Amino acid sequence: MQSKPTADGALHQLIHHMQRFVALTDDDAGALEPYLKLMNVGKKEHLLETLQPCKYHYFVASGCLRMYFFNEKGDEQTIQFAIEDWWMTDHSAFHRGANSQFCIQAVEPSTLLALHYEDQDQLFDRLPGVERYFRLLYQRAYAASQHRTKVHYDNSGEVTYLMFKKKYPYFVDRVPQYMLASFLGITPEYLSAIKKRNA
Amino acid sequence: MQSKPTADGALHQLIHHMQRFVALTDDDAGALEPYLKLMNVGKKEHLLETLQPCKYHYFVASGCLRMYFFNEKGDEQTIQFAIEDWWMTDHSAFHRGANSQFCIQAVEPSTLLALHYEDQDQLFDRLPGVERYFRLLYQRAYAASQHRTKVHYDNSGEVTYLMFKKKYPYFVDRVPQYMLASFLGITPEYLSAIKKRNA
Repeated sequence: MQSKPTADGALHQLIHHMQRFVALTDDDAGALEPYLKLMNVGKKEHLLETLQPCKYHYFVASGCLRMYFFNEKGDEQTIQFAIEDWWMTDHSAFHRGANSQFCIQAVEPSTLLALHYEDQDQLFDRLPGVERYFRLLYQRAYAASQHRTKVHYDNSGEVTYLMFKKKYPYFVDRVPQYMLASFLGITPEYLSAIKKRNA
Repeated sequence: MQSKPTADGALHQLIHHMQRFVALTDDDAGALEPYLKLMNVGKKEHLLETLQPCKYHYFVASGCLRMYFFNEKGDEQTIQFAIEDWWMTDHSAFHRGANSQFCIQAVEPSTLLALHYEDQDQLFDRLPGVERYFRLLYQRAYAASQHRTKVHYDNSGEVTYLMFKKKYPYFVDRVPQYMLASFLGITPEYLSAIKKRNA
């Protein structure tokens, strides 16, 4: 099993990710550090529950998070996963620290960097490169959501699974299969049948 | 019928919209103008077709656009509308001017301001306030897409229609009903029955 990233390791990983999008100096990296809180969470631990204030945006240095809500039947409905180098929060609630419509739970033991909503504006004023990084991340996330809407309207559960597996080949076996089925909008039994057919 | 906004009128409207999110000076407004192209399009006119390069991000000064694709059956599937003060493009394709997966069509005669993908980086370098405006827009758009995913998983066509009508009360009668039904993922006949029940 991989050892947990240290605070320095997690920050280094985030800086490395940011540098794929924007130019950052060592001074910028130093200025960024005080805005981020290192968190280690155990498997199944919750970072956010429905109707609790959503105060943090989480960067995954290692591990895996999922976002879900309870549907009208009372079942958990997973809508997103986040693995290494992904960020996750309830964006409607986060920007003002409002109560969330979603739960965020660790699927694996995870090391995170958490940005508080009250610190975000000051951080962006101080480090325009970091604001640009987030502008690019949001732009990509929104682009992906347009694509996902198309996939959602256009495809059967089987095609969606195969597209997802092609895009994230190492991911489909990493999370519990009932969560993956929920994310794909199909039953675990149907997912199992699809996997057998496409093994 | 309202008269079409002039170039000055459309720009003024965009500046006014930006000022709801960020501080902009008169100099900023002047610097912004050369980056935007005024376009007047007729009803049903296409701004983008599937597999054509997506070069522009459109701000709607007046009118209404829709984004759609052809599903596997060959039917048009509407996934988004944009009315006054909304922007629209295929975000996956736009940031590099790549071929689009979607069509964009004017639902009504529309006056638009178009930003070319090649000009965006220069504009953001020159006017950081405009980059912040787009960061906030993308953040809100992505937040709305998280909410929409929840609605999509959680609700019947009827509940989705009622939520949509509550959020955009003047919109539901403004577009052709077959487009609205497609957007809601239901048949026009079912939409008609829902509207009668909730009249």
